[in-house]
Amino acid sequence: MALIVQKFGGTSVADAGRIREVAGHIAWTRQNGDEVVVVVSAMGKTTDELVRMAEDVSSVMPARELDMLLTAGERITMSLLCMALAELGVEAESFTGSQAGIITDTTHTKAKIVEVRATRLTEALSRGVVPVVAGFQGVSTTRDITTLGRGGSDTTAVALAAALAADRCEIYTDVSGVFTADPRVVPSARRLRQVSFEEMLEIAATGGRVLALRSVEFARNHHVPVHVRSSFTWEPGTWVTEEDLSMEQPIVSAVTSDVSGAKVTITGVPDRPGVAAVVFRALADNAVNLDMIVQNTSVEGMTDISFTVGRTELGAARAVAESLAAEIGAREVLVDEGIAQVSIVGAGMKTHPGVTAMMFETLAKQNINIEMISTSPIRISCVVRASSVDDAVRSLHEAFGLGG
Amino acid sequence: MALIVQKFGGTSVADAGRIREVAGHIAWTRQNGDEVVVVVSAMGKTTDELVRMAEDVSSVMPARELDMLLTAGERITMSLLCMALAELGVEAESFTGSQAGIITDTTHTKAKIVEVRATRLTEALSRGVVPVVAGFQGVSTTRDITTLGRGGSDTTAVALAAALAADRCEIYTDVSGVFTADPRVVPSARRLRQVSFEEMLEIAATGGRVLALRSVEFARNHHVPVHVRSSFTWEPGTWVTEEDLSMEQPIVSAVTSDVSGAKVTITGVPDRPGVAAVVFRALADNAVNLDMIVQNTSVEGMTDISFTVGRTELGAARAVAESLAAEIGAREVLVDEGIAQVSIVGAGMKTHPGVTAMMFETLAKQNINIEMISTSPIRISCVVRASSVDDAVRSLHEAFGLGG
Repeated sequence: MALIVQKFGGTSVADAGRIREVAGHIAWTRQNGDEVVVVVSAMGKTTDELVRMAEDVSSVMPARELDMLLTAGERITMSLLCMALAELGVEAESFTGSQAGIITDTTHTKAKIVEVRATRLTEALSRGVVPVVAGFQGVSTTRDITTLGRGGSDTTAVALAAALAADRCEIYTDVSGVFTADPRVVPSARRLRQVSFEEMLEIAATGGRVLALRSVEFARNHHVPVHVRSSFTWEPGTWVTEEDLSMEQPIVSAVTSDVSGAKVTITGVPDRPGVAAVVFRALADNAVNLDMIVQNTSVEGMTDISFTVGRTELGAARAVAESLAAEIGAREVLVDEGIAQVSIVGAGMKTHPGVTAMMFETLAKQNINIEMISTSPIRISCVVRASSVDDAVRSLHEAFGLGG
Repeated sequence: MALIVQKFGGTSVADAGRIREVAGHIAWTRQNGDEVVVVVSAMGKTTDELVRMAEDVSSVMPARELDMLLTAGERITMSLLCMALAELGVEAESFTGSQAGIITDTTHTKAKIVEVRATRLTEALSRGVVPVVAGFQGVSTTRDITTLGRGGSDTTAVALAAALAADRCEIYTDVSGVFTADPRVVPSARRLRQVSFEEMLEIAATGGRVLALRSVEFARNHHVPVHVRSSFTWEPGTWVTEEDLSMEQPIVSAVTSDVSGAKVTITGVPDRPGVAAVVFRALADNAVNLDMIVQNTSVEGMTDISFTVGRTELGAARAVAESLAAEIGAREVLVDEGIAQVSIVGAGMKTHPGVTAMMFETLAKQNINIEMISTSPIRISCVVRASSVDDAVRSLHEAFGLGG
C-alpha cells in the first residue's frame, strides 16, 4: 500500500463532468489499495473571474484581501469534489490550506511555506477518509490567509507529499507529461519517461510550462518523486526523480524556448572597475529580475552591457537603465523586444564535450544568428530573433536525435 | 463615539455598484465619529448558484462539505467590500467566521453559536481598522467549518454586537423596517418606529420576514438594540428594543399572515387519557415541528385532533398521522392545504381586555370563518381559508387603527 498525493489543476476540475471524472480516478486509486491525499486548484477560469469582480469593485486591491478573495476558488472545488466522492461511496473531507497545516510567511500573494503541520490529514487518513486539500493557499504565522502565487498548487502538493512522507506526488494536468519539445512546434516531439530534478529545473526555468519551478525545487530538496500526467487520458506520464546514476544519461533531454523576454543594452559604458556592480545593484534594488547578462569585451575603454528581462518588467528595467546611463556617463539605452531564447537541457551534457559546438553549428546551418549565450552544467541557452525561434527548436530537436 | 455593528444582507451587496454604495455608507459612519464592525452575507444569488453547482456534481451532499462550499460566498463579499473601502481610504480587514471567533456546535448546516471569541476584532478596532466579518459561518468545537442556517448572518451580527458590547446592531436590508402589515397587501401600512423584542419575536414567528426569529431571540437575551433599516434609501427604520415601560404600549402593533402551513386532522380518535401524548410524541420523534394544536370537545367518547405544520413537513406529518391512526383506532386522516394564519401582535394586549372579541367581530363582519385559534399574552392567531387571508389582514389593520 502506497501513500500518494494527487494534485488536480484548474483544467482537470473545470466543470461538473470533470470533477466527477476526477472523483472516479481517486476512487479507482483507493480500490487499488493505495491511500490518497488530494490537492485541488480553483475550477477553470474561477480565479480570473474573481479578479474581474475585484476590478469592478475597486481600483485598489490590498494584497491581504486579494488573497482572501482568491482562496474562495479552491474552497468551491474541494467541497464539490468531496460530494462527488461521497456519491461514489468514498468518504472524503475537505481541508483549507490553514486546516491542512500549510503555514507560510506573511508575504501576501506570493507567500512561502515555512512549515507543514499535517496532523489533521494524518488523522483523517487513519480514519480511512480521503483528505481533499485546497492548493495554492495557506495561513501565515500571524494567522492571515495567504496564497502561494504562481504554481502554488503544485507546491502545496509537493510540500504535503514531503511532510507526509508520501511515496509519490502525482501532478495531473491537461498535458500528458514533459516532452522533448513543445509538440505544437515540433510534431515529432516525444514524451519523456523520466527526467532528473536538475533537468526539470532547467526545463521549467527556460520555458517548459508543465511544472512550476518552485515546486520542482521543493521536490528536489525533499526527495519527492513526482509523476506529471494527464487527467484526460490517465496514461502514464513523466517521472521527475533523482538522477539515476546507474544508467547513462541522455546527452540532451529536451529543447525549450521562451519568447517572453526582452533585451536591454547600455552602450558606451566607461570600462572601469565597479561599473557593472553599480548597474546590477540598481536593477536589484528596483526588484528587476534579470535572466542573461553579457558584457562585451572592452574597446578603447568603453564597453556595452546587455541583459534580458521578462517583458512584464521591461518598463522598470528601462527606467533604471536610463537613469543609470546618465549617471555613469554611458552613451545610450537600447531596448529590443524582438528576441527569444532557445535552450537545450540534458544531464549527460556534463560528460559530453562538443554539445555546445553542435548546437551552434546547427543554428548556423539554419542561418540563425546567436545574439547572447548562457550556460549551466546541464543547459545551453542562446538568444535569437523571435521570428526564428521555432526553426531553432525544430532543427535542434532533430540534430540531437530527440524525435520519436 | 459609539460602536456599531452593521450587517448587510445579500440584496444589499448584490453587485459591484451595491458594494461600493455600502462602502460609502460605512465610510460616512466612520466620518461621523463612530466605530464600525461590518457583517456581510453572500452576494445576491451566490448561495443558490453554489447549491446548483453541487447538484450538478453529485446527488449526495455531505453536510460538512455543503458548509465548506457555501462559506465561499461571504468570503467573496467581504474581501470585495474591503477593497471598496480601501479605495475610499478606509482601512479594513476581512475575517472569516473562524477568524472572528464565532465558535459553534458541530451541527452542520444549522449550527448554534456556543461562544464568541472576538479578540481579533477588538485588536483590529484598536488599530483603527474596520473589521469586515463573514456572516452565517463559524468554526465548530472540532475545528470544522459550519454554517448557522436560515437567518444566520443576522445572528452573527447580533452575537458580535453582544460580545463586543456594541451600542447597537444595524441590520440593513431591502425593506425600510418593520411594518404594521405587509405593504403589498395593505397599502396604508405604516413603518413602526419601535417594537419590543417580545413583539418582534411574535411578528417573526407568525410570518413577518424582516428579521429571523433566532437573531431576535439572541438580541433579547443579550439586550442588544437592533435597528432594522434599508440599504437602498438609508432612511431610519425600526428599532427593536426592550419594552419601554414608561410609556403606554400600543394595543396592536402589527398584523401578520402566513400561508406556508397546512392542517392535518385525525378524526374519530378514542378519547382516553394519553392518546394525545402518543400522537404528539410520535410526531416529535419524527422531527415534525407543529404550530397550532386543537383537540375538539369529546362527543360520545370520540374526538378530533387537528394541528398545523409547515407545508415542507406535510409529507412526514401525514405519514406519521396515518400510521398512528391505524394504531390507536382513529377514523381517518384529513389534510387541508387551503389554510392560512392571520395574527395580531401587540404588547398592550396584555392589559386591554376585549381585543380578542374585536378580532373575531372584525373577521365575522367580513364573513371570514375562524377554523382554529391560538393565543399568547401579546398575540392572537386565527386559521382561516387561504383565499380570504388578505381580506382578513386588511380588515384587522383598519379595525385596530393601524393605518397611516
